[in-house]
Amino acid sequence: MVKGIGDDCAVLRPPRGQELLVTTDFNLEGIHFRREWHPAETVGHRCLARGLSDIAAMGGEPIAAFLSLALPGDLPQRWVEDFLKGLLRLGRRFGAELAGGDVSTSPGGVLADIIVLGAVPRGRAVLRSGAKPGDRVYVTGALGGAAAVLSRMFAGERGLKARDCPRHFYPEPRVEVGRALREKKLATAMIDVSDGLSVDLAHICEESGVGAEIDAEAIPRERGVDLRFALHGGDDYELIFTARGRVPRAIAGVAVSEIGVITRGRKIVLCGPGGRKELKAEGWQHFSGGS
Amino acid sequence: MVKGIGDDCAVLRPPRGQELLVTTDFNLEGIHFRREWHPAETVGHRCLARGLSDIAAMGGEPIAAFLSLALPGDLPQRWVEDFLKGLLRLGRRFGAELAGGDVSTSPGGVLADIIVLGAVPRGRAVLRSGAKPGDRVYVTGALGGAAAVLSRMFAGERGLKARDCPRHFYPEPRVEVGRALREKKLATAMIDVSDGLSVDLAHICEESGVGAEIDAEAIPRERGVDLRFALHGGDDYELIFTARGRVPRAIAGVAVSEIGVITRGRKIVLCGPGGRKELKAEGWQHFSGGS
Repeated sequence: MVKGIGDDCAVLRPPRGQELLVTTDFNLEGIHFRREWHPAETVGHRCLARGLSDIAAMGGEPIAAFLSLALPGDLPQRWVEDFLKGLLRLGRRFGAELAGGDVSTSPGGVLADIIVLGAVPRGRAVLRSGAKPGDRVYVTGALGGAAAVLSRMFAGERGLKARDCPRHFYPEPRVEVGRALREKKLATAMIDVSDGLSVDLAHICEESGVGAEIDAEAIPRERGVDLRFALHGGDDYELIFTARGRVPRAIAGVAVSEIGVITRGRKIVLCGPGGRKELKAEGWQHFSGGS
Repeated sequence: MVKGIGDDCAVLRPPRGQELLVTTDFNLEGIHFRREWHPAETVGHRCLARGLSDIAAMGGEPIAAFLSLALPGDLPQRWVEDFLKGLLRLGRRFGAELAGGDVSTSPGGVLADIIVLGAVPRGRAVLRSGAKPGDRVYVTGALGGAAAVLSRMFAGERGLKARDCPRHFYPEPRVEVGRALREKKLATAMIDVSDGLSVDLAHICEESGVGAEIDAEAIPRERGVDLRFALHGGDDYELIFTARGRVPRAIAGVAVSEIGVITRGRKIVLCGPGGRKELKAEGWQHFSGGS
């Protein structure tokens, strides 16, 4: 960074020979989080995790973060401090220093827009569009955990401790995994699971002009989590990728599971003990009305 | 642009030997605009103008824009189309293609965050911190016009036509002026007038560790506009800059007025027919309660 907060713009020196990645994500009170459910520090963490996860999904390296933050007039200063603490701590771990942004009064609720810049060697970003029939489909870690916690909160459960449910409150962006997949040229296409497997895999299929067959029993799930959360629950921030060659069972310490294969059709078919059926993109409704 | 909308991140190729400028600005319904006062197209124009103006204030060249947009469920599709029309038209004029962003449901009102990326040759960004005692202070165009229109709306005037009040509804970011000042190495410090002369000049003084003496009668005003709007009214998006050498009276077709001098003190003093008094940063309250 040449010049950070305190001028009209931040000034950055882009890494030589690299392309720049840019992602923006809203984190709005009442839509993406609730102040009564989410401690401020976890809101800050989750906010930046969304952006870092997008950089991870391109095989990129985070270089800086920017935050537009609108605050209600009656928000305690402490809330803002804790929010920033969660955000900055995650940023430090991944080399995404807060380099600028905007602060405004909010017309209602806490409104945050996180912008993350990343870098990737020229022509090497892993896009959604590179999957070919015959490629295998993989997913990192385990799915459904974040949505399962959310559904408990929607069901009225209170007093959930953030540290007991890290999947939901402290999601871990898979930056090292994404980078390793890009470096080893293993992934032909990649996306992060922000809206749910059914939605995000559909994005890969649409952009690549292919379909997929997924083995329901092969989808790695958080312990005790219902299949529908693993299929349609968002906010896990794992990576879905496709690959042609041999893929190790763990990358950068994170388990990698083969869950299916890319097909010539345009549909995503789910194969399970009950037979085969089309997997429709149901997606995750965030907080707009339940699971 | 290598890859725009439709992947986890946009992929950009930064111009060789250049540094990158990044600015983000919230444009929130009820704070920065009102749907009943501002036609959608002008909201889109003003939204991007804010970001472009920040790039101008560094002497930069816009390269891409990103938009995070949250929309109420009952917003007419037409509103969004007109908003984007205004934004995209301005972007085309200044080479700031919309390269990505985020779309979300809004918990209340239209919420937009505009991110503009720009480029400037290495080490050549015009910062706020370069003003030295003896430098002259200049302002482009004329001040107070945007705030004067706003005050008429606050006073209850309805039916103002956007095309009759371009100062407020279609502000013109001074990108060519900023670039020319940087290329000719004329400006020692620069900022855009987004919050009002009294606030924005104070930023230059703070960052440069200097004061200023301003001649009230030399401040260029929109015709018929009260001095207080020119001193404290925001959203004009003119440039304030300081310079040591000879400065032409017009740059890129825009008038340039000398309004004062940088001093060793830390105060900003306003000199007028009524004598000398300290100019306090009053700033502009946007829509949070009137002028």
